[in-house]
Amino acid sequence: MKTDSICMAKRKKLSKVKVMMLGGLNEIGKNLCVIEYENDIIMVDCGLGFPDEDMLGVDLVIPDTTYLEKNYDRIRGLFLTHGHEDHIGAIPYVLRKLDIPIYGTRLTLGIIENKLLEHALSFSPRLNCVTAGEVVSAGCFSVEFIRVNHSIADACCLAIKTPVGTIIHSGDFKLDLTPIEGEVMNLPRLGQLGEEGVLLLMCESTNAERPGYTPSEKKVGLSLDNIFLRNQDKRIVIATFSSNVHRVQQIIDTAVQYGRKVAITGRSMLNIVGAATRLGYMTVPEGVLIDINEIKKYPPAEITVITTGSQGEPMSALYRMAFRSHDKVQLGSEDLVVISASAIPGNEKMVDKIINELLKNGANVFKDNNVEVHVSGHACQEEIKLMIALTKPKYFMPIHGEFKHMNANKQNAMYMGISESDIFISDVGKVLEIGTDGARFNGTVPSGKVLVDGYGVGDIGNIVLRDRRHLAQDGLLVVVASVDLSYRMLISGPDIVSRGFVYVREAETLMEQAKDIARNAIEDCFDHHIEDRTEIKATVKNTLSKFIFQQTGRKPMILPIIMDV
Amino acid sequence: MKTDSICMAKRKKLSKVKVMMLGGLNEIGKNLCVIEYENDIIMVDCGLGFPDEDMLGVDLVIPDTTYLEKNYDRIRGLFLTHGHEDHIGAIPYVLRKLDIPIYGTRLTLGIIENKLLEHALSFSPRLNCVTAGEVVSAGCFSVEFIRVNHSIADACCLAIKTPVGTIIHSGDFKLDLTPIEGEVMNLPRLGQLGEEGVLLLMCESTNAERPGYTPSEKKVGLSLDNIFLRNQDKRIVIATFSSNVHRVQQIIDTAVQYGRKVAITGRSMLNIVGAATRLGYMTVPEGVLIDINEIKKYPPAEITVITTGSQGEPMSALYRMAFRSHDKVQLGSEDLVVISASAIPGNEKMVDKIINELLKNGANVFKDNNVEVHVSGHACQEEIKLMIALTKPKYFMPIHGEFKHMNANKQNAMYMGISESDIFISDVGKVLEIGTDGARFNGTVPSGKVLVDGYGVGDIGNIVLRDRRHLAQDGLLVVVASVDLSYRMLISGPDIVSRGFVYVREAETLMEQAKDIARNAIEDCFDHHIEDRTEIKATVKNTLSKFIFQQTGRKPMILPIIMDV
Repeated sequence: MKTDSICMAKRKKLSKVKVMMLGGLNEIGKNLCVIEYENDIIMVDCGLGFPDEDMLGVDLVIPDTTYLEKNYDRIRGLFLTHGHEDHIGAIPYVLRKLDIPIYGTRLTLGIIENKLLEHALSFSPRLNCVTAGEVVSAGCFSVEFIRVNHSIADACCLAIKTPVGTIIHSGDFKLDLTPIEGEVMNLPRLGQLGEEGVLLLMCESTNAERPGYTPSEKKVGLSLDNIFLRNQDKRIVIATFSSNVHRVQQIIDTAVQYGRKVAITGRSMLNIVGAATRLGYMTVPEGVLIDINEIKKYPPAEITVITTGSQGEPMSALYRMAFRSHDKVQLGSEDLVVISASAIPGNEKMVDKIINELLKNGANVFKDNNVEVHVSGHACQEEIKLMIALTKPKYFMPIHGEFKHMNANKQNAMYMGISESDIFISDVGKVLEIGTDGARFNGTVPSGKVLVDGYGVGDIGNIVLRDRRHLAQDGLLVVVASVDLSYRMLISGPDIVSRGFVYVREAETLMEQAKDIARNAIEDCFDHHIEDRTEIKATVKNTLSKFIFQQTGRKPMILPIIMDV
Repeated sequence: MKTDSICMAKRKKLSKVKVMMLGGLNEIGKNLCVIEYENDIIMVDCGLGFPDEDMLGVDLVIPDTTYLEKNYDRIRGLFLTHGHEDHIGAIPYVLRKLDIPIYGTRLTLGIIENKLLEHALSFSPRLNCVTAGEVVSAGCFSVEFIRVNHSIADACCLAIKTPVGTIIHSGDFKLDLTPIEGEVMNLPRLGQLGEEGVLLLMCESTNAERPGYTPSEKKVGLSLDNIFLRNQDKRIVIATFSSNVHRVQQIIDTAVQYGRKVAITGRSMLNIVGAATRLGYMTVPEGVLIDINEIKKYPPAEITVITTGSQGEPMSALYRMAFRSHDKVQLGSEDLVVISASAIPGNEKMVDKIINELLKNGANVFKDNNVEVHVSGHACQEEIKLMIALTKPKYFMPIHGEFKHMNANKQNAMYMGISESDIFISDVGKVLEIGTDGARFNGTVPSGKVLVDGYGVGDIGNIVLRDRRHLAQDGLLVVVASVDLSYRMLISGPDIVSRGFVYVREAETLMEQAKDIARNAIEDCFDHHIEDRTEIKATVKNTLSKFIFQQTGRKPMILPIIMDV
């Protein structure tokens, strides 16, 4: 057919690879990259994000996958760089709509399996285990998993061969020359790819503002050793990210060295240590792990507790210990609490809240900024430059970060000699097209934030959030009246019920006045032959709003309910 | 009379000085210290605090002054250390109840006068201007104002002579050997007092965790000079705290040096620069200040803009510039924005939001952590130790800070040789009694947080806040029905109105089901001869809550309104 052949010709002429991010640009988390060539689409990562402060009541945020749903039959696979929530957390939600093959390393898939158990799916997800070094074919693409270091074991970057050239997706990475387990980031392979020619480097930007190199995870081990050596009389409680398998391994190793038992508390910590041990990513000598119920049988000096709560999360194990509501661990002057993590921006006050409480209980507290008990998992400027030096990309796209991070990453690339016109700071949904003739932005695809609240996915949007903010700010007044509209008569009420506005018992006069004003407004409507409920409600709302604001300086939500009986 | 003489004897025997804080312990801000001896009370500072994240809709927090109101006739004066909001911000509220004489330095009083204009009082407040070095008698006390350095001009610490001994209240201080204006902190006088004997040092704890010395304000001047020198082609926009008169002076001086005009934007910046210039705390050469409306008449290289918004405050001048809603200043690649402040804990994300937006507009941004454009106004560990070394206090009380700050300050005092039993970490309302025989905590006075929301002072409390949090989390459902209770008959409804719960147009089935459930619940009550409205409401609420949670995983507030017509 004619139209078909035109399409064919057009497509042939336009054979470009399209690169778009449905999440992870101008935001932290929710990472999802889409790469497309003609009839083939692959996805890299599928993470969740956390709600902004103004998304009241929202549990988490996932990417809008409308574009992928529409092109479901073209998706050849989802490739995962590592097992952190911001890279895999949206998978259970996306799998409900898209049954696609998933490729990832063993630990990554182990963590996903755990998650999928909590989300019943109508089919068995197709999880394919890959080892670093392996290459997977997916349509016209071939995807090579390349070892990197990161704050979780078994992390990879991806070299994606496309008909137009090789795209390297850095995932999250750092260079650790002395990793706790596994290998150093595969620099030779990246260099080889660089020699062969790299079309585009998509490079994470988390630490792009920070000069120098991120220290090795081993540095934390040295600090831990020092802490254990100098606090042999104390019970040592260490909070860290449960996913940081290497960190947990180092804590266990140090505990063993100083003859201590290790007890673990916190649901996610128990889960991950379980999975990591089962899969061989963690080694715990026989007899070291004890149940948290057993710790009272040992003197403090013989116990190490590893716990969640390093971000100050309310109801985490550390939070409960600090606020004396943990049923197994009570902390006091015999305890040293080590917070082996840095506060993620926005969590500082929550962490401080816990620290204040721990100190009030008489416990000693060590945190990131007074002893070196944490190192980042992300590449600083020199590591990013190393990545660029090895891969020598033609084009550069900063990913994973707010604008300031991506902008700093752009500076890194320019410093390495990539010209500004070959660097693309993109945005979610924006399509970068790369062909033999060059690269440019061309159009957008649907994208955005899908909010998850309870069981609801995407069922609350701007209106609901705006109402929640309004209610949060000044509460509400409900005005109810029964009327007979045909006779234009007030039958019962108006009654006023308020919540979150003012302590009613101490504002009786105000509430009585408000009732009078509502009654007058309704009767005024009737006097003016107004019988339309919408109009009556609007009148009550406006009159009352004005009065309440004059009296209190507040603007509660006013909800007039007029019942015609 | 007999009882009188017993009282007299008792009082003679018990003559102790009482020291209590009604704010500023285990919290940031809301500083208010009360010192009492027999029939005389003096207050030091009277500041406001900012609401915690869970105090939804609250504008600000002031101290509970019940104790002072009850002892109004014994108050001899309010002594102010300096003019920051956390030290003077509650004065307009407290003055409504307590017409007391106020003592402070010229700039401090100048700022208060500005504030009081916005709060109409029924009397003229008794403001008494004091110069550093002066001594004021107040009942049995004499209060000496002693120059310290701080991030606002005209700051003092206080030496309060009581019949039991001298109490030094540090206020907020740092040591600046090269201050921009005025004198170096009066170390000789503090040393003299130390020689004469100091009973108690109440010492601020803000930077008690930080080692070393806080750098001089002059350091910022050097950085500014460097920035102006290297960016002569750009318009320079600098955001800082409006109250930091010396910072603003340095910016103006540097602008003058590089032949630039200065325009000021932001209400508080205009206010303070006005007051400081009028009172002689700031010197601006003729012809330098131009109106913000005039800036377009000059090339960018000849303009410096000084603005508010360094904490990322929504709707501040810098926020509006970043989000392109400032009607006078549009920022782009010709602009350099300098944020000459560090983010107060909790404000980091708001500041980052502005920075991201400025960078997106193409502007260059310098902030605290890449160039040295800010120094703290508070004493670090070595300065605190210096204060202790000079004053040689018998007792030590850390003030102004969360527990972790006060605890660190305690360590500083112990390091200086003060024994642990002579250091008192107190709490708001807790009374420290000091007599010739020693010091100990003895009892408490009423204290707490009074919340200000709109015009309302103290009219919202835990119930209102709990409701706001509930509404913010999951919104609400109002269920209204008209019934005839005597005939046990449903007359109209139930209708359901929801806000902040779910987008109703996409949840029609759910809302219809909810109505059915509410109707069944009401009819069920009538079938069981239940006529009590409270009981019917409780049944509707419980049944509906259960259903909604099962369906959505959410727990909106459910407000049943049953009208008997």
